[in-house]
Amino acid sequence: MKFGIVARRDREEALKLAYRVYDFLKVSGYDVVVDMDTYKHFPHFDEGDVLPLEEFDVDFIIAIGGDGTILRVEHHTKRDIPILSVNMGTLGFLTEVEPSETFFAINRLLEGDYYIDERIKLRTFIDGKGNIPDALNEVAILTGVPGKIIHLKYYVDGGLADEVRADGLVVSTPTGSTGYAMSAGGPFLDPRLDTMVIVPLLPMPKTSVPIVIPGTSTVEIELITEREIILVVDGQYYEHLPSNVWITVKKSPRKAKFVRFSREIYPKYTMKIKERH
Amino acid sequence: MKFGIVARRDREEALKLAYRVYDFLKVSGYDVVVDMDTYKHFPHFDEGDVLPLEEFDVDFIIAIGGDGTILRVEHHTKRDIPILSVNMGTLGFLTEVEPSETFFAINRLLEGDYYIDERIKLRTFIDGKGNIPDALNEVAILTGVPGKIIHLKYYVDGGLADEVRADGLVVSTPTGSTGYAMSAGGPFLDPRLDTMVIVPLLPMPKTSVPIVIPGTSTVEIELITEREIILVVDGQYYEHLPSNVWITVKKSPRKAKFVRFSREIYPKYTMKIKERH
Amino acid sequence: MKFGIVARRDREEALKLAYRVYDFLKVSGYDVVVDMDTYKHFPHFDEGDVLPLEEFDVDFIIAIGGDGTILRVEHHTKRDIPILSVNMGTLGFLTEVEPSETFFAINRLLEGDYYIDERIKLRTFIDGKGNIPDALNEVAILTGVPGKIIHLKYYVDGGLADEVRADGLVVSTPTGSTGYAMSAGGPFLDPRLDTMVIVPLLPMPKTSVPIVIPGTSTVEIELITEREIILVVDGQYYEHLPSNVWITVKKSPRKAKFVRFSREIYPKYTMKIKERH
Amino acid sequence: MKFGIVARRDREEALKLAYRVYDFLKVSGYDVVVDMDTYKHFPHFDEGDVLPLEEFDVDFIIAIGGDGTILRVEHHTKRDIPILSVNMGTLGFLTEVEPSETFFAINRLLEGDYYIDERIKLRTFIDGKGNIPDALNEVAILTGVPGKIIHLKYYVDGGLADEVRADGLVVSTPTGSTGYAMSAGGPFLDPRLDTMVIVPLLPMPKTSVPIVIPGTSTVEIELITEREIILVVDGQYYEHLPSNVWITVKKSPRKAKFVRFSREIYPKYTMKIKERH
Repeated sequence: MKFGIVARRDREEALKLAYRVYDFLKVSGYDVVVDMDTYKHFPHFDEGDVLPLEEFDVDFIIAIGGDGTILRVEHHTKRDIPILSVNMGTLGFLTEVEPSETFFAINRLLEGDYYIDERIKLRTFIDGKGNIPDALNEVAILTGVPGKIIHLKYYVDGGLADEVRADGLVVSTPTGSTGYAMSAGGPFLDPRLDTMVIVPLLPMPKTSVPIVIPGTSTVEIELITEREIILVVDGQYYEHLPSNVWITVKKSPRKAKFVRFSREIYPKYTMKIKERH
Repeated sequence: MKFGIVARRDREEALKLAYRVYDFLKVSGYDVVVDMDTYKHFPHFDEGDVLPLEEFDVDFIIAIGGDGTILRVEHHTKRDIPILSVNMGTLGFLTEVEPSETFFAINRLLEGDYYIDERIKLRTFIDGKGNIPDALNEVAILTGVPGKIIHLKYYVDGGLADEVRADGLVVSTPTGSTGYAMSAGGPFLDPRLDTMVIVPLLPMPKTSVPIVIPGTSTVEIELITEREIILVVDGQYYEHLPSNVWITVKKSPRKAKFVRFSREIYPKYTMKIKERH
Repeated sequence: MKFGIVARRDREEALKLAYRVYDFLKVSGYDVVVDMDTYKHFPHFDEGDVLPLEEFDVDFIIAIGGDGTILRVEHHTKRDIPILSVNMGTLGFLTEVEPSETFFAINRLLEGDYYIDERIKLRTFIDGKGNIPDALNEVAILTGVPGKIIHLKYYVDGGLADEVRADGLVVSTPTGSTGYAMSAGGPFLDPRLDTMVIVPLLPMPKTSVPIVIPGTSTVEIELITEREIILVVDGQYYEHLPSNVWITVKKSPRKAKFVRFSREIYPKYTMKIKERH
Repeated sequence: MKFGIVARRDREEALKLAYRVYDFLKVSGYDVVVDMDTYKHFPHFDEGDVLPLEEFDVDFIIAIGGDGTILRVEHHTKRDIPILSVNMGTLGFLTEVEPSETFFAINRLLEGDYYIDERIKLRTFIDGKGNIPDALNEVAILTGVPGKIIHLKYYVDGGLADEVRADGLVVSTPTGSTGYAMSAGGPFLDPRLDTMVIVPLLPMPKTSVPIVIPGTSTVEIELITEREIILVVDGQYYEHLPSNVWITVKKSPRKAKFVRFSREIYPKYTMKIKERH
């Protein structure tokens, strides 16, 4: 079995714990590679084990950090590698174990006592072409001029679903439903669902509602506005676009995979929504 | 082929059109039965053809009226009989054709040029027992004392999903998602989805969100409040309940079936949401 | 100086503290009367000092309980007597001091080191006539048939302000703005404002918004619906009404008066909104 | 009496009507000046009558256009000159008469048969200094990085009112309450009110509510976020600011003044809210 190690770069404890996991796996005889960025912030790993995320070809990734660390892994790796995630973030909707449980969790993983939680991702195409990172959470189309709304129409499976004047539009996976989509009035989508939700941001008039659609559907966005817009994927990847493009969003052939030790959804996720308040 | 006829009882035109359909089908040589209540309001049908909805054993029901007429059919028939619905209501999310298209639609039906749109329904159990009509739209748990909120916990597949103090709680099908659930902030659920949405009514605090769950899930509601509550199914069936019951809602083994001539969802449904405004 | 004593009837500690306050004031030589209902639940007070709230003619009322106790005083007393309120409730938007501060607060009161916080109240008229208790929080017009919306128009100063189909309509004072009005989407109104806010409950369509109007305005409600409705004042007083009445709500000539030791509004009130979550 | 003329620059009809008004007033013997920008788009006016808005020193301004034209006048004139506004925009919350009524309205104005509707404006100070145009509608503090929320605290009259993580924060006048503030969930404020409303944009958690405060209050905004932010006044004036500034918003000593022929508020404004839907 081969492992990859990634840590949050801005927290010393995360980097140190990553090193201890690395050391433990090496001593136990496993092949281990370390993310280049993690190494740059904590140069104690063996340089020969360092690789950029793009070249990771391992069985599992141990990610130590928060949801941001997981998004970094998802946006850069080229294969659907299962992630065991240790929470060194704030809320951790995606992380599975707390730091104190790290080695206990790794043992369960080595013993095969886990299951894989697969999550859908969204792929975005601009005028039919796509080299935009897949979204684990959401694709957001935002006004490029803060304070000025955008005007767009969107279509589901070829039929006009809504015409909105708003700060923007979000297409979210179940995984992203607790994030930006929720602050705009979207529902919680049970992570077992193969669905997406489309949520306008501060629409005026307020007659537009969040729309939940099958995971197999295609969403097409036509910009009526003549202003530049910004496409944001998972709050991390940005692209400025002219207004005369068509944006298509549909389920990616790729999935995100997480190592889980429990199939619990309720209250695990729903209580985190409330804790945040 | 055997037909059943049902009409909205409070609109003369609906009753008259029902009679014309009845007459046309009889003349064309089909077996036709007429709903007892429709007959009572328009006693021109042949008395020998009159039956209560509960005894309808036909291939298709022609329902002339609005969504209320369809709900009446759904709550009273004992088998999942496909409904061809003619709109004599106001908005008609469920109805398929306008009055002027009635005979054109019946011809397409007789020629087999249609498809069946199946919709899930919800079954409610009180302390595990159930003789409550299935909901095509939604099951609502409401305060029995207007102006006094109720306090409840609800569980999805055995796990605590939320604890709410609110005017009530709605569990809705995709069909019902454009109704009461939507006025409480719920999303539009694409009718192709096998999902339900749970929406609290005016919760305080506002940290509770609508939750979309798989159609295979079980929702259990535990009342913490000590006040009487009211269970309302599809805005039609009422039952006052003491507060020490457990209410279970899950997908019914029965389905609603509608005769459709088009598979169009967008903009058919979403534009109706806006027209209403 | 003459005092009145009122306590929450369902909490032993509140009743005991009320007795200690009573005893202290008597020993100190003041005239003291005790609310009849309080006495019934704690018959240790001198029977000669017991009076119904309606007959209280004192300089100050010491109310020990929560917001419910204050509402009881407001609905039953005949004069605008300043209330010093000790919090034995849960959240206490209206109460001024905690139980441990009771005697400290009474001393400040006796020394004249306080100020009076005056709050507007709303008076309701049915077809122009009014014998309904003034609302300190809100007047709610609710559907008399749970699950069935009501249809109404309302007018501000004679002009049509909105036509709504909803579960009901709330007219709230600044004091009530943190209550039922807020769960329906209403804003927080700074208690220094001489304004009211009108909030529809779960309107469909959702184009209706909360409307903030001058305290000098008159609100008239015309019921279009043909169903019975329920008028609820402060969640305490109920009246079933036929649908052919006109309901008028305007500022009462009476005020609620509270003894305060600080003029602080922020964060005093706004943090309580969040604590509740 | 001296008049100023301003027209929407992008609509031929508005420019032509402006010229006709100009001509009529000149012929009638009045002093008339024409806005420089209007002249640039329609160079038929007498060049000797052209002045920049900043130098307008007239008794009345006739503004032909939409709410945007009025905002342009408000942001550039140096004195509180009453505006008679002819609607050549889309919705026209601020405009008073339709094009066909223009000369009828001017006659009423010349005869003195009108009244002045005064509206409050907001002044913004950055670290105590202010050379930012007064807001007739609202002051918005927005994230400078689309898709990334900002974190701030705001204070009313020195007391902490709320701490929010959101896309931004809006402080609105009654005039602006039908605009950006409303799409973010703010109430309609009756234009007679001397109040402001503070509304967070897509806050997460959703426990923050719109807060209505006296017109005499001071709002101070402290940025906790370390990102650049954008200050937007009336959707027209933009300023990028570092995150270590304090922003103060309070009522301006200046007012906007509009010539009105009716004191009607309801349904005039509230029906426009609905028409927009």
